[in-house]
Amino acid sequence: MIQIAILGCGTVGGGVYKLIKKNSDDIKMRTSKQIKVKKVLERDTQKALDAGVTKEELCQNIDEILNDNEIEIVVEVMGGLTFAYECIIKAIEAGKNIVTANKDLIAVKGEEIFKLAKEKHVDVRYEASVGGGIPVIGAMQNVLCANTYSDIIAILNGTTNYILTKMTEQGISYKDALKQAADLGYAESDPSADVEGTDAARKIAILGSIAFNSRCTLNDVYCEGITQIVEKDIMLANKLGYQIKLLAMAKEHDEKIILSVRPAFVKNSHPLASVNDVFNAVFLKCDAADNIMLYGRGAGEMPTASSVVGDIMAICTSILNKTTGNYGLNCYKEKEILNIRELNSSFCLRLRVADKPNVLAGIASELGTRGVSIKSVIQSPVPDIDMASLTIITHETKEQFLQEAISILKEKEYVEKANIFMCLA
Amino acid sequence: MIQIAILGCGTVGGGVYKLIKKNSDDIKMRTSKQIKVKKVLERDTQKALDAGVTKEELCQNIDEILNDNEIEIVVEVMGGLTFAYECIIKAIEAGKNIVTANKDLIAVKGEEIFKLAKEKHVDVRYEASVGGGIPVIGAMQNVLCANTYSDIIAILNGTTNYILTKMTEQGISYKDALKQAADLGYAESDPSADVEGTDAARKIAILGSIAFNSRCTLNDVYCEGITQIVEKDIMLANKLGYQIKLLAMAKEHDEKIILSVRPAFVKNSHPLASVNDVFNAVFLKCDAADNIMLYGRGAGEMPTASSVVGDIMAICTSILNKTTGNYGLNCYKEKEILNIRELNSSFCLRLRVADKPNVLAGIASELGTRGVSIKSVIQSPVPDIDMASLTIITHETKEQFLQEAISILKEKEYVEKANIFMCLA
Repeated sequence: MIQIAILGCGTVGGGVYKLIKKNSDDIKMRTSKQIKVKKVLERDTQKALDAGVTKEELCQNIDEILNDNEIEIVVEVMGGLTFAYECIIKAIEAGKNIVTANKDLIAVKGEEIFKLAKEKHVDVRYEASVGGGIPVIGAMQNVLCANTYSDIIAILNGTTNYILTKMTEQGISYKDALKQAADLGYAESDPSADVEGTDAARKIAILGSIAFNSRCTLNDVYCEGITQIVEKDIMLANKLGYQIKLLAMAKEHDEKIILSVRPAFVKNSHPLASVNDVFNAVFLKCDAADNIMLYGRGAGEMPTASSVVGDIMAICTSILNKTTGNYGLNCYKEKEILNIRELNSSFCLRLRVADKPNVLAGIASELGTRGVSIKSVIQSPVPDIDMASLTIITHETKEQFLQEAISILKEKEYVEKANIFMCLA
Repeated sequence: MIQIAILGCGTVGGGVYKLIKKNSDDIKMRTSKQIKVKKVLERDTQKALDAGVTKEELCQNIDEILNDNEIEIVVEVMGGLTFAYECIIKAIEAGKNIVTANKDLIAVKGEEIFKLAKEKHVDVRYEASVGGGIPVIGAMQNVLCANTYSDIIAILNGTTNYILTKMTEQGISYKDALKQAADLGYAESDPSADVEGTDAARKIAILGSIAFNSRCTLNDVYCEGITQIVEKDIMLANKLGYQIKLLAMAKEHDEKIILSVRPAFVKNSHPLASVNDVFNAVFLKCDAADNIMLYGRGAGEMPTASSVVGDIMAICTSILNKTTGNYGLNCYKEKEILNIRELNSSFCLRLRVADKPNVLAGIASELGTRGVSIKSVIQSPVPDIDMASLTIITHETKEQFLQEAISILKEKEYVEKANIFMCLA
């Protein structure tokens, strides 16, 4: 029997508790040991009791867990950066293995935590920190470990994917779609971490660190959310054969990394274009396995519990084999982080311009001078005013060249507005 | 340093050899040991030399490998059931760990091989046997191991998926699409194992064994290929909002398993509907993680090598930790295999009937008597003859009830033809 403690009995903690009970027979057969939840740390007694936790299991003081030598695995599912961090550090120092779903902590304090774990010969596992129930970290660290990755392109936030899906399907505004998401419990009362892209940024920092063997943190990620997306953007994208998705991306080229979260046009034929509602997906480009996509639920009680309990079972095997201390996040390289402007991609450039001769020629010339090559152009008049709307899809170009062209164009008297979306073909 | 031997230097063997060389630095960092290919068994000397194998590495006699105590891992990538089987058994008996991509062997002789491996304390890994580069076996056995599975629904054969995609996109016949596949090297000169579904059947037997912890073999799989699919079937499916896919399915209910490979209607909104060309995908329904889909290349030199080398690296870790002998396929249950007629599903029933009063009433009554409930009906006249074509989509029903109704209907003077497709919504 292996005994564990769960820190936090909210949505995820309750799910972990229930899943261990529900599938206990199979868990025992698969790990050859029974897993027993000895303690659940939760201040809100009623919440824990409602999840089925017994009074004997319930505890209010982390020291009870830290000082209990029978507890070999501590499962941190409280979230947050302060108390969770303190508990994990103390638990590692007490020789306990860790399972956490805390993306904030791994993205910000990962290096310190993994270093300490190695010193103390304990495992720190964190599958649930990215992509909820999707087996992405395990797949990347194990089955796909023979590959060199060039790109991770992912939809890592269910709330924003839900909002964008509803804006597309129902033609509604960002505000109305956000309200729907909130009514269904998909958006929190303060949705800023989701809609501004920070949540996805933390997750892509973790996946980048795994893929490129070089520590990537939240601060390394260029981050742009979906709050500025309007119905017209979505309609335009659809008309051109694209879906707008909030893409989290990590790219490596020549030992240099670019990390970003931004809304982008995704071509309908790309597998990510049909990832809808709260579903998440991670699209990997690898040198050997080629293109891989892993799709599933990025959040929720039981999907997240699936990954947490999977981690607990993996640590049980390590404990049985006396091999703890080997699993973490081994960043054996230090790669430079590049500015987003170094990104090579196709883009959709949208301009509102004066409807008169030579305007398109002037724009095309400014782009051409900087080596930005045009793939397609749609020009249409803007009703009632003497302006035209110009939509240009470029071939692959460095974003910097395009931004330079835009700066120049914005100074022209015939250009009223100019903005861009990255395009994924 | 860990030394290995590769048996067979065809497409996959050559890929394995190249991948180990190409990513050797990262492989060493990730496994903390260098992997050295000591021997490559290949009768066709030129083929091996072309792949970069040196004369010192090349060998023609399996005994050289079996008797070499420095070789700790034997990689079987020859395929086939006889010589490959013999080599694997002898290698296990010689205390060597095994990596194989041989689905035939695992699906047919798996039980014996895993049993012997356990006795001899060696690992047998087989990630590449299903889904090429897709990390499906690792994900199911590790990250998702806390789940109880109810359904695996998969596209596991690239050749047939390519053929069906081209029939759909280009409106061409099965024969013409098969020719295209052959011209591109996707179909073998004898494509029967692909187009008749046997290849997918072997793979779903393996995934079923993993998911349900109960041995499933090729003989347990109901198998129907795509050779009878005509353009009209595809057109009808598309008109109704479906794609035709060759689905490999494993379902469990009440400790009983149904295994099948058959062409089916897949609703456009289902993630499997947009898996096109030679790509494969595995859609899993689990009690905790909910719906998961893993997508990628199901075959090919480097994708298959990705999984094989991933397995080699996993065994290196086992060797270093002295924990070999724990990885295999632990079927600790014996579940009954049910006849395909016990399947509960929605179906598309197509009839050609006399165009006269009371025919629809008669048909609806025969279905209703057996509890088959109708979801939608389209009736259209067949040009030039006095017949009508009737397409009925049923609600979920047991296939047996529908088949019984069809048997009765076929005896009616007003029914000329009747056939069914399973529908996946």
